[in-house]
Amino acid sequence: MNIKITGTGSYIPSIVQKNDSFLNHSFLNNDGTPFENDNTVIIDKFKSITGISERRYVKEEYTSSDIGFFAAQKAIDNANIDPETLDYIIFAHNFGDIKFGTIQSDMLPGLAVRVKNKLHIKNPKCVAYDLLFGCPGWIEGVIQAQAFIKAGIAKRCLVIGSETLSRVVDKHDRDAMIFSDGAGACILEETNEASGIFSHITESYTLDNAFHLSSGKSFNPDLDPNTKYIKMDGRKIYEFALKHVPAAMKACLDESGVDIKEVKKIFIHQANEKMDDAILKRFYRQFKMPIPDNVMPMTIGNLGNSSVATVPTLFDMVRHNKLENHSLNTGDVIIFASVGAGMHINAIVYKY
Amino acid sequence: MNIKITGTGSYIPSIVQKNDSFLNHSFLNNDGTPFENDNTVIIDKFKSITGISERRYVKEEYTSSDIGFFAAQKAIDNANIDPETLDYIIFAHNFGDIKFGTIQSDMLPGLAVRVKNKLHIKNPKCVAYDLLFGCPGWIEGVIQAQAFIKAGIAKRCLVIGSETLSRVVDKHDRDAMIFSDGAGACILEETNEASGIFSHITESYTLDNAFHLSSGKSFNPDLDPNTKYIKMDGRKIYEFALKHVPAAMKACLDESGVDIKEVKKIFIHQANEKMDDAILKRFYRQFKMPIPDNVMPMTIGNLGNSSVATVPTLFDMVRHNKLENHSLNTGDVIIFASVGAGMHINAIVYKY
Repeated sequence: MNIKITGTGSYIPSIVQKNDSFLNHSFLNNDGTPFENDNTVIIDKFKSITGISERRYVKEEYTSSDIGFFAAQKAIDNANIDPETLDYIIFAHNFGDIKFGTIQSDMLPGLAVRVKNKLHIKNPKCVAYDLLFGCPGWIEGVIQAQAFIKAGIAKRCLVIGSETLSRVVDKHDRDAMIFSDGAGACILEETNEASGIFSHITESYTLDNAFHLSSGKSFNPDLDPNTKYIKMDGRKIYEFALKHVPAAMKACLDESGVDIKEVKKIFIHQANEKMDDAILKRFYRQFKMPIPDNVMPMTIGNLGNSSVATVPTLFDMVRHNKLENHSLNTGDVIIFASVGAGMHINAIVYKY
Repeated sequence: MNIKITGTGSYIPSIVQKNDSFLNHSFLNNDGTPFENDNTVIIDKFKSITGISERRYVKEEYTSSDIGFFAAQKAIDNANIDPETLDYIIFAHNFGDIKFGTIQSDMLPGLAVRVKNKLHIKNPKCVAYDLLFGCPGWIEGVIQAQAFIKAGIAKRCLVIGSETLSRVVDKHDRDAMIFSDGAGACILEETNEASGIFSHITESYTLDNAFHLSSGKSFNPDLDPNTKYIKMDGRKIYEFALKHVPAAMKACLDESGVDIKEVKKIFIHQANEKMDDAILKRFYRQFKMPIPDNVMPMTIGNLGNSSVATVPTLFDMVRHNKLENHSLNTGDVIIFASVGAGMHINAIVYKY
């Protein structure tokens, strides 16, 4: 028995927020002082490091559970299944639903509950829960779903990753330009085929790295210090990721028994293009192998970092031939990998 | 192979909030109008229905992850295990950390991460995630942990339920008197003994019951309508619970193969004493059996409804002989059961 993704869907929000939309922002250092350079220089530098030209924001009327539902419906349609046959709906997020113009997270009821409600699923045996695990939440949801299938308590699961980071950014923080909104989803089920999940790994480095991503006050000292925004220590995250992610990916591949030469695509969380390039370089260096062409599809340039939504959206786009120069064929070995708040790392080696 | 709870711990907050502390509250109807009766009458009626005389609040300096850590440390000590050997830390909550005097939920990083950090656990293989599943979150965490053990990806898990509902109540809503703070935890592991988890059930009724518990504005129309509080439709919850909880508990017991006469204790979520009494009555009526004496330990009178913390705290108290007229002996069959926001229901039949 193997466990396979039989359908995917994603929702790419309609509002395109280009880099020049930040030209009039008052960016500040974390001590509240202004930068010496003007915003053109700041934005150019930002783009050269992260690779981000634009990102997507949801319309004012949508929240995370709305767009998670859109992605979920597409995954269900793509798998061509009856939603009443789902045993689990796992919704990975980190901030709940936040209405436009407000600061509170609404998670009562949970976002998985809201999606199940919108899908009009009657079956009470379909367990709908929310999972918080930083950016690696969607991959972790897939790992949990396959555990439930292995344990014999599920046969078919829907795993959603959805986030509206546009609602939690500090507009005085340059890092605001990194974050975006999005949702991705997949259907996971038992299969008799010799494909699916081969191996997985999860690591939580909480002793010295727990607060590299955290909630913090605005860099603008005039704003209410009790209002919190997403805050990151980019340098520490970069160093952490380079140290641990390539090794975790290798450990996962070793466990799968698959030869590195068989790996066709690496679907990695997109938080920073330079960081992803460096991770890839170090990953292949462990095998003393050059980086194959076109092995790492990238969406960060146009989609930014949409947290839990990034990997499932990227995978959905490639599966449906929506990303130039990238396609998947039956039998291709691929790796999913993510790193984020926690700091958590996870990876899956998967035969398509 | 069976899966057993080898240690428990709980944290009962130190601030005793008696019913008379609400005497000066300005309670309002949900349309903002005042009640005709004065607060003495309102509080007496409240007590006669819910059974609550007092509830516990955490000190201003604590948040949910702080008290979750206190309970976790006690469970680890009680199980006498090395925390480095934990494969999972599962933290069930519904509102994250909310600092006293603020309204935002802080879940970045997750609360399981914060606990793992406070426990000084180095082992990155110990996966720390947060689970949102309404009041049944702790029982669901136990069900997930046993699935991971069954699937072969864990041997020892820490499951925490912690909540500070005092931070999310609308003081103009009589229901504010129901909610309290608390934390409970357990260690779950593989055992060769013929005891542990016999069966479990989970149900999510999201089609018509998703918003019986939800986030809503204050009953005081002068307060900011964008600030949300925990809101419940008590009558609908009562009707829902009576219709579905006894049947779910019976289905779980049937699956376990255990005779109803062997059930020694029922550890049920405490949201309303009258509701629990009615659930118990209906549960035993299904077996045409009178309710045994002392089968349902109650803490609601003094501890209120602390959401995910209620069941593990209750179990910990009885395990450690801290609840008069209640004790457990090796071999006793017990049932854990909960119902809450979602609406979710779950139950576990367990041999002590």
